[in-house]
Amino acid sequence: QSRFETIRSNKLFETFVITVIVFSALLVGAKTYDIPQPFSTIALLLDWFISFFFLTEITIRFMAEPRKRDFFKSFWNWFDTVIVVVSMIPADNTDLAVIGRLVRVFRVLRMISFIPELRILLVSLVKALPQLGYVMLLMFIIFYIYAAIGSTLFESINPTLWGDISISLLTLFRVMTFEDWTDVMYETMAVYPLSWVFYLSFIFFTAFAFLNMVIGIVVNVMEQ
Amino acid sequence: QSRFETIRSNKLFETFVITVIVFSALLVGAKTYDIPQPFSTIALLLDWFISFFFLTEITIRFMAEPRKRDFFKSFWNWFDTVIVVVSMIPADNTDLAVIGRLVRVFRVLRMISFIPELRILLVSLVKALPQLGYVMLLMFIIFYIYAAIGSTLFESINPTLWGDISISLLTLFRVMTFEDWTDVMYETMAVYPLSWVFYLSFIFFTAFAFLNMVIGIVVNVMEQ
Amino acid sequence: QSRFETIRSNKLFETFVITVIVFSALLVGAKTYDIPQPFSTIALLLDWFISFFFLTEITIRFMAEPRKRDFFKSFWNWFDTVIVVVSMIPADNTDLAVIGRLVRVFRVLRMISFIPELRILLVSLVKALPQLGYVMLLMFIIFYIYAAIGSTLFESINPTLWGDISISLLTLFRVMTFEDWTDVMYETMAVYPLSWVFYLSFIFFTAFAFLNMVIGIVVNVMEQ
Amino acid sequence: QSRFETIRSNKLFETFVITVIVFSALLVGAKTYDIPQPFSTIALLLDWFISFFFLTEITIRFMAEPRKRDFFKSFWNWFDTVIVVVSMIPADNTDLAVIGRLVRVFRVLRMISFIPELRILLVSLVKALPQLGYVMLLMFIIFYIYAAIGSTLFESINPTLWGDISISLLTLFRVMTFEDWTDVMYETMAVYPLSWVFYLSFIFFTAFAFLNMVIGIVVNVMEQ
Ligand code: NA
Ligand code: NA
Repeated sequence: QSRFETIRSNKLFETFVITVIVFSALLVGAKTYDIPQPFSTIALLLDWFISFFFLTEITIRFMAEPRKRDFFKSFWNWFDTVIVVVSMIPADNTDLAVIGRLVRVFRVLRMISFIPELRILLVSLVKALPQLGYVMLLMFIIFYIYAAIGSTLFESINPTLWGDISISLLTLFRVMTFEDWTDVMYETMAVYPLSWVFYLSFIFFTAFAFLNMVIGIVVNVMEQ
Repeated sequence: QSRFETIRSNKLFETFVITVIVFSALLVGAKTYDIPQPFSTIALLLDWFISFFFLTEITIRFMAEPRKRDFFKSFWNWFDTVIVVVSMIPADNTDLAVIGRLVRVFRVLRMISFIPELRILLVSLVKALPQLGYVMLLMFIIFYIYAAIGSTLFESINPTLWGDISISLLTLFRVMTFEDWTDVMYETMAVYPLSWVFYLSFIFFTAFAFLNMVIGIVVNVMEQ
Repeated sequence: QSRFETIRSNKLFETFVITVIVFSALLVGAKTYDIPQPFSTIALLLDWFISFFFLTEITIRFMAEPRKRDFFKSFWNWFDTVIVVVSMIPADNTDLAVIGRLVRVFRVLRMISFIPELRILLVSLVKALPQLGYVMLLMFIIFYIYAAIGSTLFESINPTLWGDISISLLTLFRVMTFEDWTDVMYETMAVYPLSWVFYLSFIFFTAFAFLNMVIGIVVNVMEQ
Repeated sequence: QSRFETIRSNKLFETFVITVIVFSALLVGAKTYDIPQPFSTIALLLDWFISFFFLTEITIRFMAEPRKRDFFKSFWNWFDTVIVVVSMIPADNTDLAVIGRLVRVFRVLRMISFIPELRILLVSLVKALPQLGYVMLLMFIIFYIYAAIGSTLFESINPTLWGDISISLLTLFRVMTFEDWTDVMYETMAVYPLSWVFYLSFIFFTAFAFLNMVIGIVVNVMEQ
């Protein structure tokens, strides 16, 4: 066990692990290009090597743990284990090829678990979420009410945008990002000339809620 | 009266009320889909049940009040009563069907009045509004002046965008959200090559006023 | 003189002045609609009344001043006098009709000079400008360099967007507002596949300078 | 040496240098217009004069330095020397004409090195960058994972947008700026109806990381 611990805390080993992670990320990117046959065989071999190396690395870390139970108490150990195990799905089978390639993409996430600063950053981001809880709920209620009104009134005008409540929610999100929102508005204004009230009040409410959310976070962070 | 009070403060009753509110919101959403006949009859029955339940709930809360007058002193009791009473409009009549469905949408707002955190949030949002009062007025004056200039100069170029002052206000709001604003500008620049001054100065003024509004709120919130 | 002072500080007179200002603003708005003949004659009469009233009001304020010199020491007296005098240009002459109407629009600005809160707000906004001075200059240098590069490289691709440095500056402002910026980019990428570097670096630099400007203002305001 | 020092610190000389810098910037701008033959000969002469003047100025500053070594210890001296020397490339040769013109554009940057306030501003902007380091890395990882997924799933739908990982990164940047992002989404939703999850989660993650970056800078700046 102490031997495994020596390996784990070895600076050279750490550098090698990060190199393999970066390399596996580059391999994922390289595979999105149309690569000729010989290289794709090399890519497959490299893929197997990375899978094997990651498995070895996690085993070393598991072995290095004085009490085996503690290994699974850390969220990041779980995180790494799941990524490594899941990304072992063979990528050469034609049926699972796409899934296999997608799953390998998540190996890039090991970058986060390996660099302590990124881990701290992510934890602090996630911790900021609960503060947003109620503003998010309020925003969802606003969205839901407007989507229900929208799909009741505008369904006959454009079913692609206002067909049912879930499509209307997507359309409203589009309006919130100001993405060609006037096209959506002019279309309904041709039937209901006052429907600009619907859009402008929606933009006002969501912008105001969003602004308050941002200010809320700024104030909370400052108080600490 | 004390018996009604016992019901009102009963944890189980509270959970049941929130369940019915969420359920009524889901029903509103479900009705935006094309549902076959048998289900729409069930939906109608459920609708009557919700109407009846909400009426009962508000009556219990009214009865539980030691002094009946105090019931109407609370804004949220008014809020709930109006929503519940108005959403009793029958939705099966074909003429009023759309209005009936729209009115039921507002039942979702009971989510806000029932969850104390959302109530507090909304109150604090509304309280932040008066601070914005004068910046809003200044912004409206800027909009009004530009809309008057726009509809005087550009009406002959595109009456759909600059026909009168209210349409021009809408067009300027569109420009402020950067929504295809260059299309609007290039069109008038074909006639008045210097009209970019109009748009750029407008964007500068409104962006500057908006920025100041945001900073004003941040500073106000921090001082508390 | 003291009699004029009594009029000036009379609450009723003040209310009447603000009413006339609001009314003149509404008249400006009303004229953007197609109004039938009889009403346009009334509008003309009202216009003359407002012109006359504003002239009287400013004379009263001038007369009420103990030392006539001090009247012209106030910026806002100058502001009002210029607006009132300039907006006397007759609007009935067909040649000057448009100019006359445009000039009347600026009467709406008297709202700012009359409401003390708006006056204070505007002064504080203008005072915030000098802080922005150097960031604005830096931003202009970035714009200028990119516009010079743009019109050198891309003029042959699309002279409407990159014809000379002033048109290029306008195109870059459009890119900064994210207004159909990919259309501009894809067009030049067809000739120079690496031209995305031009757009992305430009967006990065201006966004970064803008962000710093905002943060600079926030910090400055807070320190006071 | 002391004579050179007298010239360098002469107020008149400083004013003249800044005038020439501004003038060279204007010349760069003027050349983007189609100028008739006689003027372009004048422009060429002016160009040679500016090149010669800048070379003289930098020589004076070098001569004025008590210890010649210290001259190259200053970043800004390097900056100026490189700009002046590189912009000596002749612009009249037809093959190098475009490169010559581009290189002259960078003379505008001498504005930054000459105005101390801009120099300080730029240094403070650059010093703010390292704080962004890890958020930038996190953002890049998010971009990379989404680009890999995008080019795996959507390549067959639209190879222009999702052909390989670098094109996908550009497309995702476009989505982040909300530039016609729904066009991109609707296209993939026609094949994978659930692909809105891809776009909305991406917008949510990047917006959240960006927000945190901004708040992080604000807090850091405030602490100083
Ligand atoms: Na847009
Ligand atoms: Na757009």
